[in-house]
Amino acid sequence: MNSEFVYINEVGPRDGLQNQKTILGTEDRLKLISLLIDANIPGIEVASFVNPKAVPAMEGAHEIIDGLQETLTCDISVLVPNMKGFELAQAAGAKIIAVVPSATETMNQKNINMSLKDTLDSSCKILESAKSEQLQTRAYVSVAWECPYEGVVEISTVLDIAHKLLSAGADEIILADTIGAANPASVDLLFQACVKEFNPSILSGHFHDTRAMALANVYAALTQGIRKFDSCIGGLGGCPFAPGAAGNLATEDLANMLNQMGFETQVDLQKLLEIVDFCSDKLGAPLGGRMSGWLTK
Amino acid sequence: MNSEFVYINEVGPRDGLQNQKTILGTEDRLKLISLLIDANIPGIEVASFVNPKAVPAMEGAHEIIDGLQETLTCDISVLVPNMKGFELAQAAGAKIIAVVPSATETMNQKNINMSLKDTLDSSCKILESAKSEQLQTRAYVSVAWECPYEGVVEISTVLDIAHKLLSAGADEIILADTIGAANPASVDLLFQACVKEFNPSILSGHFHDTRAMALANVYAALTQGIRKFDSCIGGLGGCPFAPGAAGNLATEDLANMLNQMGFETQVDLQKLLEIVDFCSDKLGAPLGGRMSGWLTK
Repeated sequence: MNSEFVYINEVGPRDGLQNQKTILGTEDRLKLISLLIDANIPGIEVASFVNPKAVPAMEGAHEIIDGLQETLTCDISVLVPNMKGFELAQAAGAKIIAVVPSATETMNQKNINMSLKDTLDSSCKILESAKSEQLQTRAYVSVAWECPYEGVVEISTVLDIAHKLLSAGADEIILADTIGAANPASVDLLFQACVKEFNPSILSGHFHDTRAMALANVYAALTQGIRKFDSCIGGLGGCPFAPGAAGNLATEDLANMLNQMGFETQVDLQKLLEIVDFCSDKLGAPLGGRMSGWLTK
Repeated sequence: MNSEFVYINEVGPRDGLQNQKTILGTEDRLKLISLLIDANIPGIEVASFVNPKAVPAMEGAHEIIDGLQETLTCDISVLVPNMKGFELAQAAGAKIIAVVPSATETMNQKNINMSLKDTLDSSCKILESAKSEQLQTRAYVSVAWECPYEGVVEISTVLDIAHKLLSAGADEIILADTIGAANPASVDLLFQACVKEFNPSILSGHFHDTRAMALANVYAALTQGIRKFDSCIGGLGGCPFAPGAAGNLATEDLANMLNQMGFETQVDLQKLLEIVDFCSDKLGAPLGGRMSGWLTK
C-alpha cells in the first residue's frame, strides 16, 4: 500500500458550512475555495443548489459558480437536491453535479421531503439529463450504514440503490456515513460487498468523525481498494436534517494519514492548516482536526 | 470479527496523570481507580515506582497499592523503571509489574538515563526476579514505531528486544507508539511481523492519538489478531520525556469502537463517561475523547 494516488474531495464549502451558526457570504466562500484550490486539493464540492429558505448558508450558489475561474487542477462540483436545483446548476454552468438520495424512507422525507422511491426516480432523471448534457455526475448514498430514524441499513439496500444510480448515469458512487455511525467492521463489510459488484475506482467514502472512527473507517475502506474520500477542512460539518451528525472527517487529518501511509495526495498540508485558521477566524470558533493542534504547537 | 473478548488495560492513573499540570494526590487517584474498577475495566496500571523527584505526579505509589482492596475483576499493575522501583513495588505488595525499555539508544537515555543495552539488561533482571517471586510481568517496548530523537525504528530491532524480554520472563509484550507517530500501515507491518514469531495472545498495543490515528491503528492491530490494548480515560496523557507525545487513545472511544464492532469488552461505557467528568473536574480542564462530547449532548 504505497505510492498510489488517493483522491481527496473537499466538501467543506458545502457539507462543512451548511449547518454553521455563522453564515459566510459568497465572497468569503469564494475566498475559501480559492485557498483550497491553491492548496492543490483535487476536488471541491463548492455549493448546493438547494432552496435558500431551507438552507440559508447555501444562498448564492450561482454567484459561487460565476466567481470561480476555470481550473485545470481541481474538479469543481455542486450538489443538486432535485430537478429544480439541477436546472439552476446547469444554467449557472456547473460541470460536475452530485445527487444525494438517502438509503431510507424516513431520511429522504426529512432531507428532501420525498419518498425513497420518488427520490431515486428524481435522482435518476437528473443523472440522465446531466449525462445527455455531457456533465460529470456523482451520486451519494446518504446514511449508507445507519439512519438516525430507521437504524442499521441493509447492505442489499445500498447495492440496489447503487445499481439504479449507475444505470441512470452516475460516474461515481459515494457511500456516506452521514451521522458517523459506521465502524471499521461495517465499513469493511459494505465496501467488500460493493467491490464484488462494482469497479473500486468508481467508489468513494464520506465519513463523519462523530465517534472518532472516521480515520479507522478510511483505513478499512483503503484495505478494500477504495482510493477516493470526501473530507472537510477543519472537520467542519454536520447535516441540518440528521440529528447526531457532528463534524466531518478533517481534511488535514485525512491528508496527513494518507501521506504517512505512503500514498500520494498532491495536497499541501501546511496550506491546509492555514485554511483551518482562515475558517476559524471567519466562523469565530476554534476548529481543526487533531493535526492542526499538533503541528501548530 | 465478533463476539470475541478484547481486553482493555486502563493506563490513565499512570500514563494519563504523570504529565498533567495539576497533580492529583493519592486520595483522588485511589478514587479514580475505584471508579474504574466499578466500570468493570479488566486491567489498570495504577502507579509508577519512579523517583518522585523525576515525576512528582507519581508520588505515593506505595500508598496507592496499600489503599486498594483485593479485586477479583481487575488486574492491577504498576510500572517499575529500574531495579530500585521493582524492589519498592515488591515491598508494597504489587502482583503485576511492568518494565518499560525503549527501542532506541537516545530514548532510553532521556527516559531512564541508561543506555539501550543497560536498560534491556536491567529490564531482563527485573523480569527474572519477578518471575522467581511468582509475579505477573508486562514488558513495554516504548517508541516501537518511531522515536522523537532517532526517527523510524526498524522492525527487526523491536523483534530482537521482544525476544530478549520474553526469554527473561515477560508474560506480555506491549508495543507502544509513545509519540503517536504510527499509522495503520506501519502498525499492520509491525504486528504482522510479530504474530509470525509470537502468539498474538501475548501481544498488546498502546497508541497515542496525537495525529487522530489511534483508533485506525487499533483497527490495523485487530486485523492482525491483537486483542489487548492500553488506553487512558478521557484521552489523558503524554510522556514527560518524549516531546510530541500528546493524549493517549481515550478509553471511552476505544470501548465504543470495540462494542460497535461486535467485540465483548465487559466495560460499562456510561460509567466511563462519568469518570471523564470526574477527571475533568479534578484536573480543572475539559477532557474526553470524541465519545463523551457525543453522548453528553
